[in-house]
Amino acid sequence: MSDRLTIALDAMGGDAGPRMVISGANIARRRYPQVDFLIFGREAEVGPLLDRKKRLQAVSTLVHTDDVVGAEDKPSIALRSGRNSSMRLAINAVRDGRAAGVVSAGNTGALMAMAKFALKTLPGVDRPAMAGFFPTLHGESLMLDLGANVVCGARNLVDFAVMGNAFARCVLGVMQPTYGLLNVGSEELKGHEALQEASAILREANLPGQFVGFIEGDDIAQGTVDVVVTDGFTGNIALKSAEGTAKLVGEYLRVTFKSSLLAGLGYLLARSSLNKLRKRLDPRRYNGAIFLGLNGVTVKSHGGTDAFGFANAIGVAVDMNEHDIIEKTTADFAALTARTPQLRAAAG
Amino acid sequence: MSDRLTIALDAMGGDAGPRMVISGANIARRRYPQVDFLIFGREAEVGPLLDRKKRLQAVSTLVHTDDVVGAEDKPSIALRSGRNSSMRLAINAVRDGRAAGVVSAGNTGALMAMAKFALKTLPGVDRPAMAGFFPTLHGESLMLDLGANVVCGARNLVDFAVMGNAFARCVLGVMQPTYGLLNVGSEELKGHEALQEASAILREANLPGQFVGFIEGDDIAQGTVDVVVTDGFTGNIALKSAEGTAKLVGEYLRVTFKSSLLAGLGYLLARSSLNKLRKRLDPRRYNGAIFLGLNGVTVKSHGGTDAFGFANAIGVAVDMNEHDIIEKTTADFAALTARTPQLRAAAG
Repeated sequence: MSDRLTIALDAMGGDAGPRMVISGANIARRRYPQVDFLIFGREAEVGPLLDRKKRLQAVSTLVHTDDVVGAEDKPSIALRSGRNSSMRLAINAVRDGRAAGVVSAGNTGALMAMAKFALKTLPGVDRPAMAGFFPTLHGESLMLDLGANVVCGARNLVDFAVMGNAFARCVLGVMQPTYGLLNVGSEELKGHEALQEASAILREANLPGQFVGFIEGDDIAQGTVDVVVTDGFTGNIALKSAEGTAKLVGEYLRVTFKSSLLAGLGYLLARSSLNKLRKRLDPRRYNGAIFLGLNGVTVKSHGGTDAFGFANAIGVAVDMNEHDIIEKTTADFAALTARTPQLRAAAG
Repeated sequence: MSDRLTIALDAMGGDAGPRMVISGANIARRRYPQVDFLIFGREAEVGPLLDRKKRLQAVSTLVHTDDVVGAEDKPSIALRSGRNSSMRLAINAVRDGRAAGVVSAGNTGALMAMAKFALKTLPGVDRPAMAGFFPTLHGESLMLDLGANVVCGARNLVDFAVMGNAFARCVLGVMQPTYGLLNVGSEELKGHEALQEASAILREANLPGQFVGFIEGDDIAQGTVDVVVTDGFTGNIALKSAEGTAKLVGEYLRVTFKSSLLAGLGYLLARSSLNKLRKRLDPRRYNGAIFLGLNGVTVKSHGGTDAFGFANAIGVAVDMNEHDIIEKTTADFAALTARTPQLRAAAG
């Protein structure tokens, strides 16, 4: 019984609300039979959904709250007036040790502000970063920040590089990760000041792996580095631009295979292989961004995802726990920071 | 004879240098028999290339200069010490009326700084913007800035919106273009200050078409708007991220069609349709970004393109002239600015 894991869910987050969250939890329940759910939200909306999923209900505890953080709420407002919101109570469950992680598809900024306030950051971390994996020519890479920190100074970028480095070592198992700063050119003088400064610090720092300096937008999908470091504004737009393009190419392909009888026959023959590819590129597979730099597992699901995508975000929270990622990353981050005191001094 | 058009070429720009530029000019020569070329570069390198292309040589004048702007040169340095560079002399040819436009695959920042200095900006324009077309679900859209202005204030973004609006009306023939500001969320309070301010001004301004407010990265490929307005840092990374993703999906497809005998047969049947799609998505087709807001046609070719791509960039310069785009955009820009004095006042 001690091997059971409790995951807290914000039932009210996401464009499709409780219906999507509960269906997602039900998919996750089948995948992760060791998980119990602590679900926060409006009983009148969530209760009936659970009533129809008896097996999920059996492993779930529903905690009623009327309050909900709106998609348009400012993080500072949400932090002050959302103390009883489903999002905040779910985070509190992690803080109090009643849950091993929290998953929300709600307002990113509010989730970040509340998680930072309630869970606190790791020693030496100014701001946590939202990190996620994406497919590349060579497998998968990690990018951070994906939108939690819209404006970043050099110190934040350096922190992200160190956290991403530690995370890649722990999760990807790449002991000598390559990492780079996203910029508009690879030449040393390109980009704004914070990038220049962060690059100079990282060049001197002695992190494991290899700092390749500046990388460009097309390096993301090429998998030029294991860890792409960027501010949240750029990272969010780069990621969504890539997602939109993959969708566009998919749509063009659909039209192409319908454009002639031969093409249609070709599709039928290649269908099983093409379906594998479609699954591989399904953005729902990559749903679930991790807040790095916090004392606790916080996973942000895409607001527009469906139940399948939300189940994957729950999977991220489960993986983080089963592999003790927070502990390992924390230890690795501390060791890296200790080894490279100039990081703190220079970027302080 | 009066219908002939002279295009100035910087023979020394681009990763592959004169060989790529001259081969590109030769492709363009076949497409645009009305064009004469005024080519600037090192005679010892460019001369022999021209000697081998007699028909191109017949419509070309080679002007020797030893000086070249390096890919890593800072714009300010290039501006001061590159007065006799191939890039600068090609721009001067436009300034002096000896050429109707200039095409360079060289250092973007230097091209921007030199063109701005030599050609001057349109009345009311603080900084020119680099604009380019890209394929979407609904056809093509325009995005600006693509990397000429790494840091932008609200005034720049508003200028870009007005110039993009005028350009879309003149080139795309969309008289009521939709346009939006690229951001990390569509909610009104998202993003940094310059975006908030620009959005407030554009909301009040009475530009033709429809200001849809903030758009996100995935809206680019979806074709949500005709004109995507953004700073050069974000625009460059969004565009390259999209290009990298398209390339990745293409590579995945290649592997998929080789993954089984059936898939391979399917490919053979669909090949002609798939080749059409490949051509449609070929980034070289979209090569050639226009500097908007200048008194003169300046086209920036991707530095890493090949002869085919460079020929397309020359085609952009030709089109700009044949359709009097600068004159029309200038008139439209002036009219829009006059109609909306608050643009100048608020963003001044």
